[in-house]
Amino acid sequence: MPKLIYNAITRAIINELTTILGARYVIHDDPEKLEPYSHDEIAEKAYAHMPDVVVKPRTAGEISQIMKLANRKKIPVTPRGAGSGLSGGAVPLHGGILLSLERMDTILEIDKQNMVAVLEPGVITNDLNILLAENELFFAGYPMSVESCFIGGNVAENAGGGRAVKYGVTGRYIIGLEVVTPEGQIIQLGGKRVKDVVGYDLIHLMVGSEGTLGIFTKIFIKLLPLPSRKVDLLVLFRDIASAVSLVPKMITFGKIIPTAIEFMDKIAVELACRYLNEHLYSQDVGAMLLIEIDGNDDAQLEREYGIIGAMCEENGAIEVYVADNPTTQERVWAVRRNVPEAIQIFYPVKSSEDLVVPIASIPDLLPQIYEVAEKYNVIIPCFGHAGDGNIHSTIVKKPDMEMDEWQNIQETVRLELYNLVLACGGTISGEHGIGHKRKKYMYLALDSVTIELMKRIKRAFDPQVILNPGKIFDK
Amino acid sequence: MPKLIYNAITRAIINELTTILGARYVIHDDPEKLEPYSHDEIAEKAYAHMPDVVVKPRTAGEISQIMKLANRKKIPVTPRGAGSGLSGGAVPLHGGILLSLERMDTILEIDKQNMVAVLEPGVITNDLNILLAENELFFAGYPMSVESCFIGGNVAENAGGGRAVKYGVTGRYIIGLEVVTPEGQIIQLGGKRVKDVVGYDLIHLMVGSEGTLGIFTKIFIKLLPLPSRKVDLLVLFRDIASAVSLVPKMITFGKIIPTAIEFMDKIAVELACRYLNEHLYSQDVGAMLLIEIDGNDDAQLEREYGIIGAMCEENGAIEVYVADNPTTQERVWAVRRNVPEAIQIFYPVKSSEDLVVPIASIPDLLPQIYEVAEKYNVIIPCFGHAGDGNIHSTIVKKPDMEMDEWQNIQETVRLELYNLVLACGGTISGEHGIGHKRKKYMYLALDSVTIELMKRIKRAFDPQVILNPGKIFDK
Repeated sequence: MPKLIYNAITRAIINELTTILGARYVIHDDPEKLEPYSHDEIAEKAYAHMPDVVVKPRTAGEISQIMKLANRKKIPVTPRGAGSGLSGGAVPLHGGILLSLERMDTILEIDKQNMVAVLEPGVITNDLNILLAENELFFAGYPMSVESCFIGGNVAENAGGGRAVKYGVTGRYIIGLEVVTPEGQIIQLGGKRVKDVVGYDLIHLMVGSEGTLGIFTKIFIKLLPLPSRKVDLLVLFRDIASAVSLVPKMITFGKIIPTAIEFMDKIAVELACRYLNEHLYSQDVGAMLLIEIDGNDDAQLEREYGIIGAMCEENGAIEVYVADNPTTQERVWAVRRNVPEAIQIFYPVKSSEDLVVPIASIPDLLPQIYEVAEKYNVIIPCFGHAGDGNIHSTIVKKPDMEMDEWQNIQETVRLELYNLVLACGGTISGEHGIGHKRKKYMYLALDSVTIELMKRIKRAFDPQVILNPGKIFDK
Repeated sequence: MPKLIYNAITRAIINELTTILGARYVIHDDPEKLEPYSHDEIAEKAYAHMPDVVVKPRTAGEISQIMKLANRKKIPVTPRGAGSGLSGGAVPLHGGILLSLERMDTILEIDKQNMVAVLEPGVITNDLNILLAENELFFAGYPMSVESCFIGGNVAENAGGGRAVKYGVTGRYIIGLEVVTPEGQIIQLGGKRVKDVVGYDLIHLMVGSEGTLGIFTKIFIKLLPLPSRKVDLLVLFRDIASAVSLVPKMITFGKIIPTAIEFMDKIAVELACRYLNEHLYSQDVGAMLLIEIDGNDDAQLEREYGIIGAMCEENGAIEVYVADNPTTQERVWAVRRNVPEAIQIFYPVKSSEDLVVPIASIPDLLPQIYEVAEKYNVIIPCFGHAGDGNIHSTIVKKPDMEMDEWQNIQETVRLELYNLVLACGGTISGEHGIGHKRKKYMYLALDSVTIELMKRIKRAFDPQVILNPGKIFDK
């Protein structure tokens, strides 16, 4: 593989950037101000890299000028949303220009007639969700980082999150994009129409492309009417098998598609409850499911949660709590959302994984994961979007393990987990993406012909490999 | 634009194809047997082209060998499903090899645990739907050609159809594909998992690529539980404005997302009823809506169709028929499905269009279309998927217009319609595709940078432009 070679940022380039943006929005020669842009939510320093300069454009036109300059001078550009990613996608791996979308944070339009929102990429997902709710409208995107992540990053990563069982992932709702191409041209894909088969579907090629094929400057989101009511069931089980064996049954036999079926194993529940000082946990609890249903019809919801509750009890649930008001609902979701943070606090040396398998394989998968944990003397808390087959197994160093040993076995443990999911028709990432953390494992999940086609697409959009180089693959 | 130049089919190539497939599945030198493969459902001869040889492979391995041969000899290959397309996508425009998928017609698996169907591309969509219903499962794909079209063609065209308002178009359900690439390599994309962000989303680049980027040999479809009940409302209006102004209101204010909101104008209803000898039509009727809702809860459905019925009556409906059993439901849908056939019978000289606009623009669009019809002395029956903003306006020659005049004005009328939809944020095809019928209009809908990116993708997959050349764009 030939190495990517770029030119250094010179004083002349800084001057050109300053001419485009103004001095206030070009940060350089100030390590303290540059450092926050050197990493995402991955804690390990090994995945970080400092940018040479951070730029904060406000318009597509400015981004276009920056990309043209970068192509002319052969300088890498790494786009960045909120930096809440978990695969290193926003890390400026080859230095150069870090392009932050933080100033492009305007909700441009809520078109109620067409049920479409038009946004800039730096809008915080939760801010959109709050505004929509006030308008009786709904966007199903609900990544666990909803309070901080940007919508642009959600699109770039095709974020999944807590409502995908019923509503699908982010990409389903993206019907238009304004994009600055890697060569600096501004294109408009789609718009407010819900159907469009004119040429190739570049919109959904852009979705999930991890900032390697273009920079989104406007995002058109198809909205839904806000369901008038939702109910959450927090279900405690004595053991994991009872909890996870219920997941595929619920949809198949219950004929109910919940909004969410979230899973937390004993360790995940315990850590999150300890972190939040929440008393839901007790020694008896071996696993927890958080099931949400929504709709407009009270009677139907009651019927549905009756069926789900009965299925849980038949499957050996210890307790079924019903949360049917915003306060208790926020309380139960806070437990789920705070699992990663809790693990980070109590076990800071870790690697977050994002395994995904066909839903019926979950009951088989989990015991095998715990066997791997046992074999290598690590802890692997498992939690996540069980209704999608997407489990965030987090490989955790026990406090008494030496760092050297951890460094030695971490890779082996990860490979064993990847081989487990691949063996049952799953893959190595369901929503976190490849970034640079997982790029060396691409060959496990995809054949060489498919990877070569992806690389050709990259080169078709970005002949000089200027935009977010070193992500997904090297060249 | 350089012309595409291919080699002729020689006796040696026929022999190689015969070695791969056996003589029975290689048709040549027999115009009568070749002719049915020279056109799709577009009636006009100008869009047809004869193949030199028709091949009928049974396996991905055979297709791989054919594609490798075609690349070696520089022979064009045009894949074909049921030939029910409406944009010339399956027409072998440069002659060469027509590759029919008709023998690859097996439903390989209905996986109830994972709610996934695995199919070969030549399965008739309705055959799948019937088998699924017997298993209490559901695929929302419902193109109006459902009784004849192949699932492979549905994926290649990203078919929309009659249930897209609630369920979305075909692409939403495609979670895996086995594909033979234009260069003859067999790749596997996705599978039975519902989430996957490993590399670029090649699955949804393939969906809607009109047979230009690969030949699907296995299709993985995500299934839903079969809704236990559906209700159809056939609503007659005195005038078009009352009917179409209701469409955006129903979703926005009614907070109900019907399965279908189909529209037929006076001419469309009259022709379909005449063709079917159906008595629903009377002189008073100016337009008709066919609205379907589905669900598992009788009370909820009753509430919903009560709201819809009341909205219809407030909007000036003459009559609301409720069809709540399979016999009457089939009767009302037959009227809608048979509109194109009825137009073909009574007005054989025509051009079927596939306009799409943001839903709120439909009430403005229709009067403008009728003005164009008036201006050029043609008839333009309008019908289609109003709930998606997708209207099949069909430009029809009046019997007393001379063919010369028709040929002269047809292009002008089409351009006026395209300009109308583009002006309100719509586009030139919602589900029929570009094929070769609309390729010269691509520049109206997309900027030159976007078209160039699409061409680069085509060349990335198919460096010699062997697979379905002359579709979407020339090279």
